[in-house]
Amino acid sequence: MALISPSRRLRRTPFSDGVEAAGVTGYTVYNRMLLPTVFRSIVEDYHHLKEAVQVWDVACERQVEVRGPDAARLIQMLTPRDLRGMLAGQCYYMPVVDETGGMLNDPVVVKLSDDRWWISIADSDLLLWVKGVAYGYRLDVLVDEPDISPLAIQGPKSDDLMAAVFGDGIRDLRFFRYGWYDFKGKSLLIARSGYSKQGGFEIYVDGSEIGMPLWNALMEAGKPLDVRAGCPNGIERVEGGLLSYGNDMTDDNTPHECGLGRFCNTATAVGCIGRDALLRVAKEGPVKQVRAIAIDATALPGCDRPWPLMAGTKQVGQVTSAAISPDFGGGVAIGMVRMTHWDAGQLLRVETPGGAFDAEVRESFWAL
Amino acid sequence: MALISPSRRLRRTPFSDGVEAAGVTGYTVYNRMLLPTVFRSIVEDYHHLKEAVQVWDVACERQVEVRGPDAARLIQMLTPRDLRGMLAGQCYYMPVVDETGGMLNDPVVVKLSDDRWWISIADSDLLLWVKGVAYGYRLDVLVDEPDISPLAIQGPKSDDLMAAVFGDGIRDLRFFRYGWYDFKGKSLLIARSGYSKQGGFEIYVDGSEIGMPLWNALMEAGKPLDVRAGCPNGIERVEGGLLSYGNDMTDDNTPHECGLGRFCNTATAVGCIGRDALLRVAKEGPVKQVRAIAIDATALPGCDRPWPLMAGTKQVGQVTSAAISPDFGGGVAIGMVRMTHWDAGQLLRVETPGGAFDAEVRESFWAL
Repeated sequence: MALISPSRRLRRTPFSDGVEAAGVTGYTVYNRMLLPTVFRSIVEDYHHLKEAVQVWDVACERQVEVRGPDAARLIQMLTPRDLRGMLAGQCYYMPVVDETGGMLNDPVVVKLSDDRWWISIADSDLLLWVKGVAYGYRLDVLVDEPDISPLAIQGPKSDDLMAAVFGDGIRDLRFFRYGWYDFKGKSLLIARSGYSKQGGFEIYVDGSEIGMPLWNALMEAGKPLDVRAGCPNGIERVEGGLLSYGNDMTDDNTPHECGLGRFCNTATAVGCIGRDALLRVAKEGPVKQVRAIAIDATALPGCDRPWPLMAGTKQVGQVTSAAISPDFGGGVAIGMVRMTHWDAGQLLRVETPGGAFDAEVRESFWAL
Repeated sequence: MALISPSRRLRRTPFSDGVEAAGVTGYTVYNRMLLPTVFRSIVEDYHHLKEAVQVWDVACERQVEVRGPDAARLIQMLTPRDLRGMLAGQCYYMPVVDETGGMLNDPVVVKLSDDRWWISIADSDLLLWVKGVAYGYRLDVLVDEPDISPLAIQGPKSDDLMAAVFGDGIRDLRFFRYGWYDFKGKSLLIARSGYSKQGGFEIYVDGSEIGMPLWNALMEAGKPLDVRAGCPNGIERVEGGLLSYGNDMTDDNTPHECGLGRFCNTATAVGCIGRDALLRVAKEGPVKQVRAIAIDATALPGCDRPWPLMAGTKQVGQVTSAAISPDFGGGVAIGMVRMTHWDAGQLLRVETPGGAFDAEVRESFWAL
């Protein structure tokens, strides 16, 4: 492990002062912005996330805002998911594909109105794709990155913390719905969503200047709940099967390979750029697909490169995220496996820089 | 300073094994790939770069390859620099702008032939912009990221090292020209270029499998020259005024603000997407511009955010890269200053997280 060198290019966030004061010890870089990865230790953070409530600086989930008369048309061009039934007040998970059906990002899209949308992006400059397509098609839209920084509240006590700051009404918010809630006279969009399986919210903090006041208010109100600064947890998200763009999928992969076929309405998502390529995939099915992989190990190195999954001397897949699970025992992993070996119960070997281990394809990811 | 957490998303390079064996101690992330920042110490690396020769893993300078009958038209759409006179065998520094004239990247473009180009990019997913525009305009081109990883040889003894591996003919290569040179039966494009003022070459390593063999051959041949693994040096590049996209300029800035007006041929670069916006800027001139800034300090924090440049109580600019220079003494910096205060000799104050210091606008950057 090496140190990360500071520079303006690795952007700080409106919450960085709070993150540093809370004693962050590890970072990654996501959308050219700092994303905390560890506070006390990954294991200690993991247990706390499952028991209490955490405040996460996920400002790196940058927004692509699309405004104007052609906004809805442009958003539908980006994705094979049929958005016709989507209403203001809803959030949709939305695979974004290029003309070959390759994944460019897997954001959550937030519909503000027919002519105003936010795309809350994973780690790639989706802004440039959206701007390029809009320009090429001469669409009547404005596309830019507004000063909006998501702050996530995650963990079983999330409702209690949010109610303490925003009022009890927020308890009624449904999953992947949003509402507008007041903080110091400013109306903030808050969704019930987030990158863990422990429940919680994402606050779309509009304006950097209220970042630390909101952070501090949450920390103060959360004292009785044992609130802490946290971050997406590398163990918990693998247990829950939450894919990570750039780790578990890249632009080489179709949504079907990523297990996202249910978000591909190729027959009805009229206008989707990758529709023709995906129609073909949807008919024939993918020849490899994401799977939960159990690894028979008590220690694993960091998964900084794909680990080959072997059936005898033949490579039949790869593991792209892995960790040792305190709650389930042994190694939990996300991999992509060829059709010939992807059935649950299939025994394989995984080759890591720390040695080879027995592995087994599972029916599903680990719950809670 | 915190540790960087390993993941596949922060891509390793074909040279990572060599970089680690050489004892890298610091990284940044550039185009979602690991870029070394420190080996022994920034100061020790700096002196060695100016005296000997270094091998740099700059695989993070990813290539956008554009091929097909419309390739030349598409490349000209990207930039206000007039490319009509460019020949195969040449490399051009090329600002890339959006429709508003905002900088999207500042790559070096390599012309292989009229219908095949490589764009060697700075830190943004330019691939997505180029693909989006090509798709929107229905251009007859293929756009992708090939398996090409630049390896830079920098320092005053670069010619000697390169001649030892590729033959004496390489000494005749002119600045920003390239040629094809043999390594183990494979023909590699090598340009006289690189992100330092110490002279050197960039080898466009075509195929990951030859990465380490080439690295090892250079290290072996360079022993009499005191070759070492190195990386772009945070002091040397500021002394030399080499701008860094994301640090010293962003998509908020026009090329003219970045001092790149000489690369903007708005009258003749027909087809450039941002031409209309830049024609306006070219007529009126920018109201702020990049400047060399001397700082009267003996120690400075890492410049992880813009530092305000003050004239009394009024902010008139910002510093975006800074370091203490062993060779020139005191602080050397790159900043952007408003027209009212950008003349050489102007005295200002710079506010850093480590305190405020006297600063002076300089006529030019520091040489060698």
